[in-house]
Amino acid sequence: MLRSAQCYFYCSFRLGIARRTSNNLDINMVLTIYGIPRSTSTKRIVVVCKEKNIPYRIVSIKMLENEHKTPAFLEKQPFGQIPYVVDEDDGFMLFESRAICRYIANKYASQGTPLIPTDPKELAIFEQAASFELNNFEAIANPLYHEKVIHPIYHKIPTNESFVAHYVSTLNQRLDGYERILSKQTYICGEKLTLVDLFHLSFLDKVYLMLPETIDSRPNVARWYQALSQRPTWVEIKDTAPESFLV
Amino acid sequence: MLRSAQCYFYCSFRLGIARRTSNNLDINMVLTIYGIPRSTSTKRIVVVCKEKNIPYRIVSIKMLENEHKTPAFLEKQPFGQIPYVVDEDDGFMLFESRAICRYIANKYASQGTPLIPTDPKELAIFEQAASFELNNFEAIANPLYHEKVIHPIYHKIPTNESFVAHYVSTLNQRLDGYERILSKQTYICGEKLTLVDLFHLSFLDKVYLMLPETIDSRPNVARWYQALSQRPTWVEIKDTAPESFLV
Repeated sequence: MLRSAQCYFYCSFRLGIARRTSNNLDINMVLTIYGIPRSTSTKRIVVVCKEKNIPYRIVSIKMLENEHKTPAFLEKQPFGQIPYVVDEDDGFMLFESRAICRYIANKYASQGTPLIPTDPKELAIFEQAASFELNNFEAIANPLYHEKVIHPIYHKIPTNESFVAHYVSTLNQRLDGYERILSKQTYICGEKLTLVDLFHLSFLDKVYLMLPETIDSRPNVARWYQALSQRPTWVEIKDTAPESFLV
Repeated sequence: MLRSAQCYFYCSFRLGIARRTSNNLDINMVLTIYGIPRSTSTKRIVVVCKEKNIPYRIVSIKMLENEHKTPAFLEKQPFGQIPYVVDEDDGFMLFESRAICRYIANKYASQGTPLIPTDPKELAIFEQAASFELNNFEAIANPLYHEKVIHPIYHKIPTNESFVAHYVSTLNQRLDGYERILSKQTYICGEKLTLVDLFHLSFLDKVYLMLPETIDSRPNVARWYQALSQRPTWVEIKDTAPESFLV
């Protein structure tokens, strides 16, 4: 473990979170992400680290060798999924990318881009969007991407076209809902960017890659997607997240 | 609208939230739920209302007549899904059952059963579980139930056995993860019941109805399910939620 092998001392320059290790190998590092730089969920965390100026490093998990199904990994992530993280401040471990993003956004609330509202009604609207992102977007876009891309390329399993047709039909209905919402406001919770907009980015990119017309045919969804996907933090990591980011 | 048609006056007996209307028809009513008493997501809200002693009424939506796809409904719920709610205190509207439950649990934090932790680390663990409930349980159990029950009975569409086989295989893997977690702790976030345990109840019941062996074969999942499903608040509503609850 990095923490036990090194002796940190903290200094207070730059944003109050910078630190140095005794050997200078891990200047400022706050979060260790056990994941894969190109994975959708790892990038979900990395873009939030960048929006909040949180130094991180990625330790790659050898998924092709099934490292994520070993007893040692399952002790840390009981579903055998990536990523999980360790907060190098105190060794706190957490999995589920959206929960990790919320943890970062809460812990560093006053630093970088504000991402979670504090007003109770705005927070309720934020939770409404966080819930439909999972139920109405991720729950369709993720298995669609697996069926069309991950299964044939990585698992050598042929695409099931019946599944694809079902997912595409449902996705179109759900994107009609997004168009209704985004015809009235700039971002998914209102006029301000929030964490929920960023949650969508990984699979919005995949949907645009697979089925650009589902986005281009809906002017407000297209405007929203363009605005999000052009954020400098996302442009830098969208293909493969850099393996470390030191503020 | 109920609010505009009636004249409320507030009184402070019982829990500080009770109220009476001028005609006594809606004593204490706080929340109007536009849904269906037997639906999984309506019951998700109702059990939380009961745990928090929040009076509600349900206004049934005529889904068989496609009321949820009308322009008037889509103005309130842009995806054409039930339920949405109106907080009769101030007319605030919200959809997505889990977001509604969080709103109730936050607004009435000190009343009834505590359901959302406040300590930052406990909150992070809560969000971790809230996230995997959607990604690793609802995302499988919901379409499985639709494929096996809703489609053939309500939509007169034959069950797609290929879909069912895929969902059952995935559900078994995911429940192995639940068993790992619940072998170490009483509830899904630790030793205390939280909102996330209650989020699972609607579809745990459906899974038990369809595939009891997936739960019974995992001793800690079975123990957890039995404890949750025997809560008096759930026993009262599990088949069909009562249309109103006045504290």
